[in-house]
Amino acid sequence: MIKWIFFDIDDTLFDSKELAYHSRMNAVKAMISAGLPEKDPEKIYQELLKIIKEKGSNYGKHYDDLLEIYGMRSSQLVASAVVAYHNTKMAYLKPFPDVVPTLLELEKKYKLGVITNGRAVKQWDKLIRLGLQHFFEEVIISEEVGVLKPDEKIFRVALGKAGCEPKEAIMVGDKESDIAPARELGIGTICVGDFDSDFTVKNFSEVLEGIEKIGS
Amino acid sequence: MIKWIFFDIDDTLFDSKELAYHSRMNAVKAMISAGLPEKDPEKIYQELLKIIKEKGSNYGKHYDDLLEIYGMRSSQLVASAVVAYHNTKMAYLKPFPDVVPTLLELEKKYKLGVITNGRAVKQWDKLIRLGLQHFFEEVIISEEVGVLKPDEKIFRVALGKAGCEPKEAIMVGDKESDIAPARELGIGTICVGDFDSDFTVKNFSEVLEGIEKIGS
Repeated sequence: MIKWIFFDIDDTLFDSKELAYHSRMNAVKAMISAGLPEKDPEKIYQELLKIIKEKGSNYGKHYDDLLEIYGMRSSQLVASAVVAYHNTKMAYLKPFPDVVPTLLELEKKYKLGVITNGRAVKQWDKLIRLGLQHFFEEVIISEEVGVLKPDEKIFRVALGKAGCEPKEAIMVGDKESDIAPARELGIGTICVGDFDSDFTVKNFSEVLEGIEKIGS
Repeated sequence: MIKWIFFDIDDTLFDSKELAYHSRMNAVKAMISAGLPEKDPEKIYQELLKIIKEKGSNYGKHYDDLLEIYGMRSSQLVASAVVAYHNTKMAYLKPFPDVVPTLLELEKKYKLGVITNGRAVKQWDKLIRLGLQHFFEEVIISEEVGVLKPDEKIFRVALGKAGCEPKEAIMVGDKESDIAPARELGIGTICVGDFDSDFTVKNFSEVLEGIEKIGS
């Protein structure tokens, strides 16, 4: 019998890819409008992506490094980028439209949890801004466990906290790192996206159907 | 003849004191609601103020230190506080109601500038979020000059950038550190608040009258 449903956050509960693209692109456009000499947003965006890839997404000086490429130092341009990024992020940090009604259905029958990679305060920040934090009884974050998905340990920690067997749990995620290790442990798997799993869905609301199929 | 009007930002262009109080108080209340064992917001607020006073307002771990007082570590509570703080800050980061119409009048006759204490990106961030950045032709920030108001140097740097004489400039601020050094240099002074100056106003719109009196 299925007792627990665990969810990934990014690109499962909200559109993290769209958020990242538009936030960064609007940061770039704000810098252009505040006086960056290069005026092609696509070109600057590619330079920004290179910096993010090299320095990681938690590095605090992306925009300073970007300005350096164009021989500039400017607190005004950095602040313009930061404000545009944050305003756009806040507009996109909303659950997929069918997430709240689906979770409302699910929490009548199952206990709900989160298994996510990232910094603890940052992942909690997302859950709270998404308005979803009260749905989840257990939130397992890689920073606190010490390993990232696809390490099986993070799933074992989740099962331990929930006090349930693998066959009593289902993992809902969008990536191989959500699905493969869960399946390896005997946890049911639902993929919101294109990746192979016990049940693959296009819309979040189909998760309801997936759970019933896997549980039967 | 008056050519340049310089403004302080915090508590001159917007209500920084109200912003700080409500943002911090709402952070405290969010922590209580997310499970902090102490339930008296006033008591927790006072502890938070002590930490801010001791560590400075740019220290990144205020809420972690606060939790430690109550024997806790919790990313959820830290994130709850951060989100409540930021949401409240965004609601309060608005110019005083008469700032925009007054600046619109002033920029027809004078050049406008800012002389402010703080970190450069943070002060630009405020100007941009306030929607006031396009009014000012020169923005002089202590971090970039290397000294804080009331050091006269920051005023001399401002006059140099503006290319004007002290008697051609007026400083508008709310604190002794805005007024005293400006007056010492021969710059006209207008105080938005209770401090003694060439012209003291209660509402920002009275700045117009003050400039005419000082200039005549």
